[in-house]
Amino acid sequence: MTHEYFMTQALREARKAFEEDEVPVGAVVVVQEKIIARGYNMTERLKDPTAHAEMIALTSAFHHLGAKYLTEATIYITLEPCLMCAGALFWSKVKRVVYGAEDEKNGFRKTTGPQWPFHPKTELIRGVLKEECALLMKEFFLKKR
Amino acid sequence: MTHEYFMTQALREARKAFEEDEVPVGAVVVVQEKIIARGYNMTERLKDPTAHAEMIALTSAFHHLGAKYLTEATIYITLEPCLMCAGALFWSKVKRVVYGAEDEKNGFRKTTGPQWPFHPKTELIRGVLKEECALLMKEFFLKKR
Repeated sequence: MTHEYFMTQALREARKAFEEDEVPVGAVVVVQEKIIARGYNMTERLKDPTAHAEMIALTSAFHHLGAKYLTEATIYITLEPCLMCAGALFWSKVKRVVYGAEDEKNGFRKTTGPQWPFHPKTELIRGVLKEECALLMKEFFLKKR
Repeated sequence: MTHEYFMTQALREARKAFEEDEVPVGAVVVVQEKIIARGYNMTERLKDPTAHAEMIALTSAFHHLGAKYLTEATIYITLEPCLMCAGALFWSKVKRVVYGAEDEKNGFRKTTGPQWPFHPKTELIRGVLKEECALLMKEFFLKKR
């Protein structure tokens, strides 16, 4: 089980968003090589701009585990998290954050700069399947124009 | 209708959290001098560390209005928002953020520094009823020891 495998699963979630005319971002939460929660962007469907893939996947993971912390979990996200999602990941104490494409416009790093927004023990891995993740976003915005 | 009046309403929400043994933070969303949404911290009850007063009040406000943006709304929060909530407030495009007590430990300013995390048009007012808001937090943590 590789990072690429689980990112492919996150991309599958992102494609569901794409099909529903939502900005195509997806996420999965993995514990011991098993996916315990999935989420994709639902901001339009729910008319709620906080209904990001990560928020949905995190809340689903807390429910699944009946626990407030994800210290043994890895979250795979197709896009760099925004400030809100970075903050949510901080509170989750997630073990590892793996994301695909960078988000120059709304990624957390634009606001936090060199400051680390996650829990001190959280590990960050960037750029897994970044071309595929970025391509899906590009396709979406081309379609929208 | 003053900022103090609405902050008193947010404090009322915070006291509900206190009574349920939750970190006592409350929030209300106001449009045209009417409270359209309320929320208080439910992280323990929901076993979800993202269930902050602001997140609950914001989601309730989106549902109430059937709209993704709160450009005519003011949110009153008893405590300085954390990074996640600051990010959620950004997405909401809320007109005005009013908070009471500062949060030296987890307030957004600790991570963002001088960077503005909200929408460029959002107005920020700090320190409304800050003593009352801070006192409730102090009481809670004294009780917890």
